[in-house]
Amino acid sequence: LLNANERFFLIDCGEGTQIQLRKYRIRFGKINHIFISHLHGDHIFGLFGLISSFNLVGRTATLHIFGPDQIEELILDHLKFFQNDLSFEIAVHKFQHHRPATILKDSNVEVITIPLKHRVPTCGFLFREMQVPRNIKKEMVEKYSIPIRDIVKIKEGKDYKTSQGKTIPNSELTLPPFRTRSYAYCSDTAYSEDVIEIVKHVDILYHETTFLNKDKDLAAETLHSTSREAAEIASKAEVRKLLIGHFSSRYKSYDTFEKEAQEVFPETTAVNDGDVFSVSRVRGKSMT
Amino acid sequence: LLNANERFFLIDCGEGTQIQLRKYRIRFGKINHIFISHLHGDHIFGLFGLISSFNLVGRTATLHIFGPDQIEELILDHLKFFQNDLSFEIAVHKFQHHRPATILKDSNVEVITIPLKHRVPTCGFLFREMQVPRNIKKEMVEKYSIPIRDIVKIKEGKDYKTSQGKTIPNSELTLPPFRTRSYAYCSDTAYSEDVIEIVKHVDILYHETTFLNKDKDLAAETLHSTSREAAEIASKAEVRKLLIGHFSSRYKSYDTFEKEAQEVFPETTAVNDGDVFSVSRVRGKSMT
Repeated sequence: LLNANERFFLIDCGEGTQIQLRKYRIRFGKINHIFISHLHGDHIFGLFGLISSFNLVGRTATLHIFGPDQIEELILDHLKFFQNDLSFEIAVHKFQHHRPATILKDSNVEVITIPLKHRVPTCGFLFREMQVPRNIKKEMVEKYSIPIRDIVKIKEGKDYKTSQGKTIPNSELTLPPFRTRSYAYCSDTAYSEDVIEIVKHVDILYHETTFLNKDKDLAAETLHSTSREAAEIASKAEVRKLLIGHFSSRYKSYDTFEKEAQEVFPETTAVNDGDVFSVSRVRGKSMT
Repeated sequence: LLNANERFFLIDCGEGTQIQLRKYRIRFGKINHIFISHLHGDHIFGLFGLISSFNLVGRTATLHIFGPDQIEELILDHLKFFQNDLSFEIAVHKFQHHRPATILKDSNVEVITIPLKHRVPTCGFLFREMQVPRNIKKEMVEKYSIPIRDIVKIKEGKDYKTSQGKTIPNSELTLPPFRTRSYAYCSDTAYSEDVIEIVKHVDILYHETTFLNKDKDLAAETLHSTSREAAEIASKAEVRKLLIGHFSSRYKSYDTFEKEAQEVFPETTAVNDGDVFSVSRVRGKSMT
């Protein structure tokens, strides 16, 4: 679950998602957008229960579901059996998995697909805050008696020319804008360098690591990644932080995953259910 | 999950069933029979994940799934999207929901449907051990030099006539047979006296109690039962023990459910996930 300025984006929805959301006291009525990376059970089998629960509490807001081509048929088939009379609308947004595309964009956030290499059509998702206008310094408005019509331009980054013909540079008039924060999610996928350009410089990259390097043949065969490969993507994309997960249940302990990745990319954390990671809202130059 | 002499019968399969089975360390590879009472999400949304997991571990044994009419189409539809190449076969057994019927019977157990009153076709299930032959007392075989050809008849309850023409009554030759144990599961349903005859004298009756008596109008409207109604069924059917569950999440505490039922039927327990109830294997007269 991505909380982007109190907008809740649910990314994949495996079996038991609603149970986990309740456990961690997420107000899941706030989820209006669900992004499904691919149609494998561990990424979608929780969707139907969530839809049922939304209906049970009388949800009215439209639920937007993004997913690969087949998702529309799957959802329609499902509703045929279980819910013909939903209390809310479902808007299904299908995406192509061959090239990156902007699938959602408004004044706050942009969501771009990340084509991945898996056994079925699969995309990851890049979430990026939109740049908001600069904040103008109040005292400067007073000092130079700046008229309202010029304020919008200054917020956009323009300098200001006083009635005396003196040019005041924008940097003196405004605070630096907030950095635009970003999060990228890549699961499930074989090692794919095509990802690097898209996730370049993101604040947090989640990348699957189903296997350890010693099982890299198995990773290649099943189109999954090793921990080392995930770290290489993070390193080459120069992201700020790497989160890894999706560990195969064949391993008794997951400690080795973190260690293996950290050898390549030290800023790696192996994640557990319920973990929370935040990216602070700070003023300064965005990396992306 | 019903463990009948180490045969595992799964009864309904809501979202997260496989997660709960793992949590309670149930070896779910031993499940060969799944009984679905009706096609509401909280009774079937865990089936697809369970099928996936069976496939992932390379299950080969046929999985028998029993359910109302539509279940076959639902499962076929599902497999179309997710699994065309299962490592095992699924045998779907559809049942009619209008009258009780034996849907499984072998030398160990018999399963009979219990027609229920709900918003969609719904049946509960009665599981009954089959009567096994009496155990003959070894010392009697020696004492009367009983030939092998007569032993089978004696196990079936016949008396024995010695070569001297003396009749030895069966009760002297054999131990009393084990009682045949029984379990009945009724969810979801409005109060229905049709159930009583079918579940008469069972060792354990599970009956849903979605609502408390104070909300009996809501129970009637949604075709669910109150705690008091479940207890009335148990009392009229003279069962040994009543288990209640399926409490609406509208209630903050479930203590009242147990108290309300116990006023009518003292041998009532409100159940929680992970609870285990056993029926001892004892010799003596069966009640059913």
